[in-house]
Amino acid sequence: MLNLLLAVRQRSESLVAPLEPEDLCLQGMADASPPKWHLAHTTWFFDTFLLQPYLKGYEGCDPRWSYQFNSYYEAAGARHPRPSRGVLTRPTIREVLAWRQQVDAALTQLLTSPDADQEDIQQLAELGLHHEQQHQELLLMDLLDGFSRQPLEPAYQTGADHHLGPLEPTQARWISCDGGLYEIGHAGAGFHFDNEGPSHRIWLEDFALMDHLVCNDDFRCFIADGGYQRPELWMSEGWAVQQQLGWQAPRYWRGNGPADQWQEEFTLEGRRHLNRKAPVRHLSWFEADAYARWCGARLPSEAEWEVALQQHQPLIHDAHGKLWQWTASPYRPYPGFLPAPGAVGEYNGKFMSSQFVLRGSSWLTPEGHERDTYRNFFAPANRWMAAGLRLAR
Amino acid sequence: MLNLLLAVRQRSESLVAPLEPEDLCLQGMADASPPKWHLAHTTWFFDTFLLQPYLKGYEGCDPRWSYQFNSYYEAAGARHPRPSRGVLTRPTIREVLAWRQQVDAALTQLLTSPDADQEDIQQLAELGLHHEQQHQELLLMDLLDGFSRQPLEPAYQTGADHHLGPLEPTQARWISCDGGLYEIGHAGAGFHFDNEGPSHRIWLEDFALMDHLVCNDDFRCFIADGGYQRPELWMSEGWAVQQQLGWQAPRYWRGNGPADQWQEEFTLEGRRHLNRKAPVRHLSWFEADAYARWCGARLPSEAEWEVALQQHQPLIHDAHGKLWQWTASPYRPYPGFLPAPGAVGEYNGKFMSSQFVLRGSSWLTPEGHERDTYRNFFAPANRWMAAGLRLAR
Amino acid sequence: MLNLLLAVRQRSESLVAPLEPEDLCLQGMADASPPKWHLAHTTWFFDTFLLQPYLKGYEGCDPRWSYQFNSYYEAAGARHPRPSRGVLTRPTIREVLAWRQQVDAALTQLLTSPDADQEDIQQLAELGLHHEQQHQELLLMDLLDGFSRQPLEPAYQTGADHHLGPLEPTQARWISCDGGLYEIGHAGAGFHFDNEGPSHRIWLEDFALMDHLVCNDDFRCFIADGGYQRPELWMSEGWAVQQQLGWQAPRYWRGNGPADQWQEEFTLEGRRHLNRKAPVRHLSWFEADAYARWCGARLPSEAEWEVALQQHQPLIHDAHGKLWQWTASPYRPYPGFLPAPGAVGEYNGKFMSSQFVLRGSSWLTPEGHERDTYRNFFAPANRWMAAGLRLAR
Amino acid sequence: MLNLLLAVRQRSESLVAPLEPEDLCLQGMADASPPKWHLAHTTWFFDTFLLQPYLKGYEGCDPRWSYQFNSYYEAAGARHPRPSRGVLTRPTIREVLAWRQQVDAALTQLLTSPDADQEDIQQLAELGLHHEQQHQELLLMDLLDGFSRQPLEPAYQTGADHHLGPLEPTQARWISCDGGLYEIGHAGAGFHFDNEGPSHRIWLEDFALMDHLVCNDDFRCFIADGGYQRPELWMSEGWAVQQQLGWQAPRYWRGNGPADQWQEEFTLEGRRHLNRKAPVRHLSWFEADAYARWCGARLPSEAEWEVALQQHQPLIHDAHGKLWQWTASPYRPYPGFLPAPGAVGEYNGKFMSSQFVLRGSSWLTPEGHERDTYRNFFAPANRWMAAGLRLAR
Repeated sequence: MLNLLLAVRQRSESLVAPLEPEDLCLQGMADASPPKWHLAHTTWFFDTFLLQPYLKGYEGCDPRWSYQFNSYYEAAGARHPRPSRGVLTRPTIREVLAWRQQVDAALTQLLTSPDADQEDIQQLAELGLHHEQQHQELLLMDLLDGFSRQPLEPAYQTGADHHLGPLEPTQARWISCDGGLYEIGHAGAGFHFDNEGPSHRIWLEDFALMDHLVCNDDFRCFIADGGYQRPELWMSEGWAVQQQLGWQAPRYWRGNGPADQWQEEFTLEGRRHLNRKAPVRHLSWFEADAYARWCGARLPSEAEWEVALQQHQPLIHDAHGKLWQWTASPYRPYPGFLPAPGAVGEYNGKFMSSQFVLRGSSWLTPEGHERDTYRNFFAPANRWMAAGLRLAR
Repeated sequence: MLNLLLAVRQRSESLVAPLEPEDLCLQGMADASPPKWHLAHTTWFFDTFLLQPYLKGYEGCDPRWSYQFNSYYEAAGARHPRPSRGVLTRPTIREVLAWRQQVDAALTQLLTSPDADQEDIQQLAELGLHHEQQHQELLLMDLLDGFSRQPLEPAYQTGADHHLGPLEPTQARWISCDGGLYEIGHAGAGFHFDNEGPSHRIWLEDFALMDHLVCNDDFRCFIADGGYQRPELWMSEGWAVQQQLGWQAPRYWRGNGPADQWQEEFTLEGRRHLNRKAPVRHLSWFEADAYARWCGARLPSEAEWEVALQQHQPLIHDAHGKLWQWTASPYRPYPGFLPAPGAVGEYNGKFMSSQFVLRGSSWLTPEGHERDTYRNFFAPANRWMAAGLRLAR
Repeated sequence: MLNLLLAVRQRSESLVAPLEPEDLCLQGMADASPPKWHLAHTTWFFDTFLLQPYLKGYEGCDPRWSYQFNSYYEAAGARHPRPSRGVLTRPTIREVLAWRQQVDAALTQLLTSPDADQEDIQQLAELGLHHEQQHQELLLMDLLDGFSRQPLEPAYQTGADHHLGPLEPTQARWISCDGGLYEIGHAGAGFHFDNEGPSHRIWLEDFALMDHLVCNDDFRCFIADGGYQRPELWMSEGWAVQQQLGWQAPRYWRGNGPADQWQEEFTLEGRRHLNRKAPVRHLSWFEADAYARWCGARLPSEAEWEVALQQHQPLIHDAHGKLWQWTASPYRPYPGFLPAPGAVGEYNGKFMSSQFVLRGSSWLTPEGHERDTYRNFFAPANRWMAAGLRLAR
Repeated sequence: MLNLLLAVRQRSESLVAPLEPEDLCLQGMADASPPKWHLAHTTWFFDTFLLQPYLKGYEGCDPRWSYQFNSYYEAAGARHPRPSRGVLTRPTIREVLAWRQQVDAALTQLLTSPDADQEDIQQLAELGLHHEQQHQELLLMDLLDGFSRQPLEPAYQTGADHHLGPLEPTQARWISCDGGLYEIGHAGAGFHFDNEGPSHRIWLEDFALMDHLVCNDDFRCFIADGGYQRPELWMSEGWAVQQQLGWQAPRYWRGNGPADQWQEEFTLEGRRHLNRKAPVRHLSWFEADAYARWCGARLPSEAEWEVALQQHQPLIHDAHGKLWQWTASPYRPYPGFLPAPGAVGEYNGKFMSSQFVLRGSSWLTPEGHERDTYRNFFAPANRWMAAGLRLAR
């Protein structure tokens, strides 16, 4: 556990290696956070929830650092306003990295001490590890947002977009699944976030899932057919949003003239040719839902997605590792869900309104972080995540 | 049908009889509409969706009236912005009432003609009737909002709040329901909105529903226990809303000092004594959800609500006729749902994101308009509707 | 005095006679007030500042009425928010008119009593009279705004726009004025607002004023020459405002295609043909300033305007009775200015930042209310007043 | 000229030497700009207005750099939105400094070429020099704003606040000035901004100016006397602003409890003890105006300020080098003012609405940049500049 933890910690630091110093405080919008903030916040998480309560003699960080790097934990006190994280030029990266080393040393001390086997400590260390992995993906998607707002269109790193190549060139086809009473949610002993449980039964009617993700060429047809101009395809709320914000294509498509002829997209490697057969990405739920309606199909529920994997995992291409997949399911608690006691109970449980679930994982998700029961969630208008879609009917 | 329709139409007009002329254009907020607008919009609905397509020789209304009184039907053309309905002082009430008479005459002509039995006509007439009933309730709840914003606190009508008296003085108790595979949604032949179907199967685990609504005294305990000051009881989104808006009690409670000691509430009869045993009303979903969490309970899903009525209707007090009851269910389509073709398909289908379902009906709901399968829906921060809550576990 | 006062009071009521009941609460925007509010506010002014302090035994109005009808007098207590005056459907017009009668009776009693000659009473009665005249003009310009927002484009009254016919068909020409040391501001004994004094000396260099107002045809040339597309003609602040709001012509011009070819304007008589030789009206200061720059001219300072009238009144056409005329002068106190003590000191003195002075009077100004020293003032982006312009160089 | 220019250019770079890399993109609010942006923008100014037009063979910068570093020159093309300058992490500081060297080399080449004596070139080089000096002050005041928003309250540099020590400990007294006809504005041959001329005559009545600036102790009395709670002291617009923003002291005062007892202020040296006898700074015009009214005095007009210096320079302490001094004068063109032709005409001329003039200079103003005729200008609600006040009567 300790070795894994330190490796994950190390990976976070390696993610900022390709950056220029000025990039470290880049916050493109209120929803995103600067890279340095992610490095500090994940460290604060261990400092606050694991080391302060469990490591004897450990002195917590400066309360002003805690104020700066608490994200949303009401139980951990007041916080710096989220939309203004970009103004936090201090502490410097040098100070943050030094803090990371101290915290890593303290984690090493705790996890090699006689107390290390306590269940609380094990669970919090594991939670902190997965928390840090989540922020690794957030860091990259936030960075893509911040870079996309600059006229110079910086590239993060050669190869950063490499894993999201074209889909397998086989014909997309429907995978039929039988209805019935199924059990979904995390049941076993391994790590999972609280919102993945309890495991519970759910009734499904017969359904089918597409074995491929929707690709750029597919989505181009939607645009060419007036997809962004036909209100009957959209939720009323989504129509209002796209009219107001002037959406005419996925977030990072680039080009001139009619959007269905745009040929480029902005990526972590800078502006690139838009690969026609790569899965379409950086879509809001509203766009995914409208596209599905236009096809005469729909988005799968999260239960359908999970059950299809239980039954047909090998047939269902790219369930993981390409793009998170929007589902038709609002993010709500599973029957019997109880958040963990204390501040870490705020991790997932308080966000269960006005968001939709995404399933799977993306090419930005750290290896080993994905699970079939994983419930990611974002607001239906959000587009900066690594999100795509798979059809159901 | 015609007689029923004309009676409903007549009732709309009788609702504005107690008003002063200036009240007819009162719009207290962007979400609400003026009384005169409701009278005109329901008339426009018949004009546009029934008479123009089906009554030969019928001339539709002035296109500027259509622009003014179209609510949200994209397929029926551009609309006057909703937040500015209050500036539409013209047409005058005289002109609107004259229009209503003309439309009533045309409806009579159509529904006594040989075409009257056509299914389309029957269905649209029935839809228009239920639509007008919905607006009767909206008119009153919008009026309550508009009156509540005036220092003079006008009363609408003596007796208008009469039916919402104290709950039955029996002890509230839990009604146990067995889990299993159930069928919910509207199945029979009678009128229902498209969103009530299709009827479909759903799996439920054992659950229990409270036989009483939550009353003012119950909710006062929540306030006294710091309910509005404890973030751990709230969804994150709800906490942000109540902090920003300064909520400290249900919307129409009135008083001085700490909110748990307020003794009055604003009603359609003006400011009245707050009846301790009456059901608490004009709560947002966020408040209902926080209250349930504070109790160690939860809100019922809409399926639980409907199944409990199937099993235990006589035990479940006030399922109808007091207050709409918030459920834990986001408003989403039932499996297999298809909106009606054409403009009336916009009636319900395009609002299926970021709202929650309410079940039952209220003392403002016109008689005969309620159904056990009825799915009302509002955004989780809305409070001006006649909404209360019932606990589940 | 009493007779004059009662005649002015009577005129206010006659102004609402052509309105429909629903119009009485019409508030088209936050800056404007409903007609009924103007009737009540001017009455509140007498009630609060004259009758309560000076008429023995007089009982002031209900404090809630005072709360509703206080405009901006901090010393007179809290106020209903200005942008929400439209929701004040109560008191009804009947109640307001009854109140006006009571206040008129009390004014009659006071002004025929032995106290009537007291200087305070005389001054406050006179101030109230002029205040009510000001609101008569405000009522009409606010109404024009409210009517302009309605698709049905109501007309207020036949003849209401009559006095603003075409300019005299003589050739416009420059009137030269000698520089030197002049005295401006109100010096004599007659009524004037506090901001018109003290009379004081000012140095002017030689200048010239145009004897005509700028007319619609003149302004059409500005539009045709790209006036709204050329940032070099505009103050930076004005350019930002017009870009954001999409201005392309004076506020009430109407038409299709390029704005320099529009042929109609909205008036108190409804939509009318745009008279080419009538003075251009409903311009912001930003537009007036840009137009003058485009001409190679400028706006006159308020001192130039006043001195030109001292020297050349008969030559200067339409100084009064057509349109208020924007000047180059920010609204600031004259040297030695002291506001009146007490609440009425708030009448003019606290608005002396971020506004510009207009001189003259308009066709909406009540007869006898105009003065050469009158200083009207509005923010530079405002357009709903009866404002035009006259060039200087 | 060239040597002076290169020295000024060098000083800009030395200003960022004490900063951490992350600070270079710090933008605390929409009105402020990041340090790196200032370094780039001043360089863009020379590139665009001097080198591109006059140095043969000179290639201008990348158009995307021009887009990023154009501040507000409409004639120089589209611009990156001002409130988002903080997201421009690229070009890096290294690239910007390299660009500065190239531009310095090109400036050297041009100013040592045979063309160097051309009047245009001399004037633009001089304008660029003074422009860069202005931005040196802006850089520091923007930085103070950005640092003030961080919980860690960084210090810029020891000694940075040194020159703003206590006022001379003599008794403040009124300096009387005779009225009469005076000439103000820049008349001689030396450099001045276009808005300082033309020199022109103005009539003044007798007046007096205080020989000292208002100090912290003076202002503390205003606060203790309820200065921020008494609307009669404030312009209506200023009262609304301070109520909304919750002002209770000058912008950078710090402390607990009632504001008149606060003992610290935030400075470029970090949080420091509030020197009772130092001049009060970082006040809005609204606060300066309210303070003067509370004293029974007023702010001087800009003409009074300039004439007092003409007559009594040695008596008038701290006219320069401590704080800019708010005047009663709205920022408007002098009679006969014509902006320079072309893009540089946008430098000052288009900002002449809704701002007030400040006179003098501050401890942040580069040596040699100050002039008695200098007209600085800011909006009346701005507080982040080095502004104080001096009374008149």
